[in-house]
Amino acid sequence: MERQFETIERAKVNEIDEILGQPFYVLDDGFVRIIDYIGDDSSIVQAARVSYGKGTKKLRQDRGLIRYLMRHHHTTPFEMCEIKLHVRVPMDTWRQWIRHRTANVNEYSTRYSVAIDAAYQTNPDAWRTQGTDNRQGSEGVLQQNTGETLSRQEQTFQNQARTIYNERLEQGVAREQARKDLPLSTYTEAYWKIDLHNLLHFLRLRMDDHAQYEIRTYAKTIGEQIVRRWTPIAWEAFHDYRMTSAAFSKMELDLLKAITGGKDEQAIELAKSNGVLKEKEGQLKPNLELREFEAKLKSMQIKPPWS
Amino acid sequence: MERQFETIERAKVNEIDEILGQPFYVLDDGFVRIIDYIGDDSSIVQAARVSYGKGTKKLRQDRGLIRYLMRHHHTTPFEMCEIKLHVRVPMDTWRQWIRHRTANVNEYSTRYSVAIDAAYQTNPDAWRTQGTDNRQGSEGVLQQNTGETLSRQEQTFQNQARTIYNERLEQGVAREQARKDLPLSTYTEAYWKIDLHNLLHFLRLRMDDHAQYEIRTYAKTIGEQIVRRWTPIAWEAFHDYRMTSAAFSKMELDLLKAITGGKDEQAIELAKSNGVLKEKEGQLKPNLELREFEAKLKSMQIKPPWS
Amino acid sequence: MERQFETIERAKVNEIDEILGQPFYVLDDGFVRIIDYIGDDSSIVQAARVSYGKGTKKLRQDRGLIRYLMRHHHTTPFEMCEIKLHVRVPMDTWRQWIRHRTANVNEYSTRYSVAIDAAYQTNPDAWRTQGTDNRQGSEGVLQQNTGETLSRQEQTFQNQARTIYNERLEQGVAREQARKDLPLSTYTEAYWKIDLHNLLHFLRLRMDDHAQYEIRTYAKTIGEQIVRRWTPIAWEAFHDYRMTSAAFSKMELDLLKAITGGKDEQAIELAKSNGVLKEKEGQLKPNLELREFEAKLKSMQIKPPWS
Amino acid sequence: MERQFETIERAKVNEIDEILGQPFYVLDDGFVRIIDYIGDDSSIVQAARVSYGKGTKKLRQDRGLIRYLMRHHHTTPFEMCEIKLHVRVPMDTWRQWIRHRTANVNEYSTRYSVAIDAAYQTNPDAWRTQGTDNRQGSEGVLQQNTGETLSRQEQTFQNQARTIYNERLEQGVAREQARKDLPLSTYTEAYWKIDLHNLLHFLRLRMDDHAQYEIRTYAKTIGEQIVRRWTPIAWEAFHDYRMTSAAFSKMELDLLKAITGGKDEQAIELAKSNGVLKEKEGQLKPNLELREFEAKLKSMQIKPPWS
Repeated sequence: MERQFETIERAKVNEIDEILGQPFYVLDDGFVRIIDYIGDDSSIVQAARVSYGKGTKKLRQDRGLIRYLMRHHHTTPFEMCEIKLHVRVPMDTWRQWIRHRTANVNEYSTRYSVAIDAAYQTNPDAWRTQGTDNRQGSEGVLQQNTGETLSRQEQTFQNQARTIYNERLEQGVAREQARKDLPLSTYTEAYWKIDLHNLLHFLRLRMDDHAQYEIRTYAKTIGEQIVRRWTPIAWEAFHDYRMTSAAFSKMELDLLKAITGGKDEQAIELAKSNGVLKEKEGQLKPNLELREFEAKLKSMQIKPPWS
Repeated sequence: MERQFETIERAKVNEIDEILGQPFYVLDDGFVRIIDYIGDDSSIVQAARVSYGKGTKKLRQDRGLIRYLMRHHHTTPFEMCEIKLHVRVPMDTWRQWIRHRTANVNEYSTRYSVAIDAAYQTNPDAWRTQGTDNRQGSEGVLQQNTGETLSRQEQTFQNQARTIYNERLEQGVAREQARKDLPLSTYTEAYWKIDLHNLLHFLRLRMDDHAQYEIRTYAKTIGEQIVRRWTPIAWEAFHDYRMTSAAFSKMELDLLKAITGGKDEQAIELAKSNGVLKEKEGQLKPNLELREFEAKLKSMQIKPPWS
Repeated sequence: MERQFETIERAKVNEIDEILGQPFYVLDDGFVRIIDYIGDDSSIVQAARVSYGKGTKKLRQDRGLIRYLMRHHHTTPFEMCEIKLHVRVPMDTWRQWIRHRTANVNEYSTRYSVAIDAAYQTNPDAWRTQGTDNRQGSEGVLQQNTGETLSRQEQTFQNQARTIYNERLEQGVAREQARKDLPLSTYTEAYWKIDLHNLLHFLRLRMDDHAQYEIRTYAKTIGEQIVRRWTPIAWEAFHDYRMTSAAFSKMELDLLKAITGGKDEQAIELAKSNGVLKEKEGQLKPNLELREFEAKLKSMQIKPPWS
Repeated sequence: MERQFETIERAKVNEIDEILGQPFYVLDDGFVRIIDYIGDDSSIVQAARVSYGKGTKKLRQDRGLIRYLMRHHHTTPFEMCEIKLHVRVPMDTWRQWIRHRTANVNEYSTRYSVAIDAAYQTNPDAWRTQGTDNRQGSEGVLQQNTGETLSRQEQTFQNQARTIYNERLEQGVAREQARKDLPLSTYTEAYWKIDLHNLLHFLRLRMDDHAQYEIRTYAKTIGEQIVRRWTPIAWEAFHDYRMTSAAFSKMELDLLKAITGGKDEQAIELAKSNGVLKEKEGQLKPNLELREFEAKLKSMQIKPPWS
């Protein structure tokens, strides 16, 4: 029991403390605000070393360690940072958000209180068309005049939904039942508390191009406005090893080796034997997996030998 | 390595196997169906004994052990049973359901597919009025003629919501965006897989009188139609030690002791000194906590001495 | 977007800040230290109201709300507080501790570092005898002279274990393998981060009389030294509604009603018909469940009619 | 409610049913046995389609979908399969195993029962030496004669530990306390139930070369003997997209592009400007991150230009 413990202070991030409680606005009426947090970059290092008090190493070493942890998916030290946010989100978006289970949540209750009188409205120039490649995504927008019709129609409909909701309440209908026909675009609010590892996992999925525009906008706000300030070294490592990295399967590595080695024929045979390249009426047809590989080649400015 | 292992077979519950895939209908267009499961009552016992193969004890002993585990909140053996359900639920109800985080979920995707063309409609005689005591509940129903007006209005509104949704799709709006004004009453479907411990926790909260009628109806269906058949001994223990039990705080036990001991004055003083009973203008006013205690007394046909 | 947000500050608990990093010693060489935290009692209220900034209600109302939440098992607001501890614990105790899954953990690595050179030693007067009632517990202690023998034997053995460990390291054996015969009494350290709801659940189970002495001592330290200072209102509510409360099954309530109503014969018949009381050779024999009920009666100074 | 539901049967995997309960032996006295399961490859597809009963698609399409889900980290459909294992493991290994929190566990209780009388013994030719590169791993083995000494010493020590344990029990020491000096090599048993997604995550980490030999052996047994039989298509996809794939950071992709494009100088400059390559006394010194990249290049038979 001879061990000496210095008095310590809470980890403190000035850049966050300065904006505590201030809203970052998202969509037409949403926001994200920081309420509180535990930890900073040095807390990740501390947890990895489980040796609090050994004296602060130089920043350079800390950065190297954090990057090593991120690169090798040593995730538990990132769990030692925690952040509590207050968010305002359309219910439609919240339905996706809430699927991330490892978080603490207190949502605004429309059983207990009258529903928030705001719905997310789409501007005339923001009606997106159905993606053709990606069955669950969107691409491009509708023409302005069509968009204007749809936006007018939406506003009328949302107003009517609210009128019906209010009428039910006036008639004495219980709030828990009156709400049943509110549109999914209705805003809700919640406190959302999550550790940094699970937050980064959320961001990786939701900042992705395949995520829906709305939740992607929230995710980018949280990532670029909040995490970047809160744990800048972890954020940089996340960017380098998660957001801008690419994974190659064994087959892709073999193809890459053949292609960069100048063995185009071998690459084509390899693709064929793996069933990702078919010959149809004299033409080579890559399947979905191979087209995904082509995209990676393209980003490296390498031309696939079968095209 | 001399230990001998008999060949074993999967735990099998005939009463469940007979109804596998058959829907239990809930609300006007919802259902719950069993898809698959792991374990039965004996699996709970097996886990508690961690001694598989010791030969089956007599039912009586197994029942005693399961009841002991339930009574003493030894929850992990109940986690060794797992069930997979297919459910169809209004989104409004699903918003409550999904808050139970320790479960596996695959929900019908309205990004990938056109939204289910069905919404939960309220009958004229089923519009509930706002609870007065319970700020988040309902009690009683509206008059029939008011109900008829509300139901007609709802049907028109839901039809209109669908028309707008369909028009958006026809205009080429992406499904992920077209859905944004669908009413919360729209049905969704999901596979939902959960272990027995967490399922019972869900049932305790959602079969409760304070739970909203809709989710309560689903919970009762799952409990009374499914769990009762699947693990009848655990179900009985759950009924006895969770659903129909009552908890008494130290203060309540002290009050109970005084009252049943015939010491009414002492009970009143105790309540006062605990701040749950106030004298106002010569009248004794119990606060919310004491009124909750009165309800427990009432169920035991004991009259509180302050009333 | 007209809504005004005041600048906020982090929730801060002076009583905790003053002792940050200071060890509470436990057992012969263990400790618990607070590293950081999110939230205080008011954060629970804030989450329950999901209405941050509405102005602080009077303490009295906050206290009432926290007690209401605790009484009715509305657990999510308690998840909005989080605490990070640094603990030093024998591995044997840690094996129980780690079973609480909803927490973040970074443990001292004996793959990466040489094992901590300390083992938990039992004093001559602290060798506990096997419980007779409770098959998994202990009661009483062995005689001093036996205890002295056992303690001497332990110390020799622990020294020898360390000698062997060190010899293996000197021979070049990998740390990950050299450790394999370290005794379970060897100390380990960890950062442990958990939300208040899950911490209270941990405390309810581990402060219980049935919990093993060692982990109970840690739990009591965390509860009485840390949580009591951190969130005093929640702690008081936890004490009143969890630690000193008692649950009665429907059968127990019926028995209680009969007994307090002076209907002893009816109580006996009820117990018999429920199978918890048997007549053997002219004697009434309560089973385990009824004996548990007797204990509750005893705490209310009520005599069971069958004894 | 017109929708017709066919009667369904439980997903059934003959290759698993045939070996149910049979042990796969691991280490000198450990095993893994399958007790029960939910689902098979088709259940993953079913969950992804959330459209049970639409008729079985051709195997080819199912395989393509499962591979797509794996490639794109769409993890929830894999959670719809669940498996329950009975394992026997040294406590030292179990300490690593239990860190995987998303699983259900019932471990053999040494409070309730006498500890299993078996400890994991290391053969004379199996004493591994400390890794030099990898600070937490091992590499190579000690010489046979040193190994013989260590193994003899271990056996004596383990016997002695058992003797002391037994003596304590004979003296009447409570089991919960008598066990405190058992070596970490003592075997324990547990039921372990986990969904396929979390199991694959466990396998990815624990089948890795960096995992400790002991847990790696268990992981390989579970993977190659059990998952391969249970969900062969998911297993194959896991192999291709997780176990044998490689991730490249943006910097690594840029380096790869330069190198395969024949621009060695540019690659070297890039590495320098990223701080991963230093010039020291006329020599180019790659740091840890760059050496990891070199290993990936090597597996593609590409020579780094700085070496």
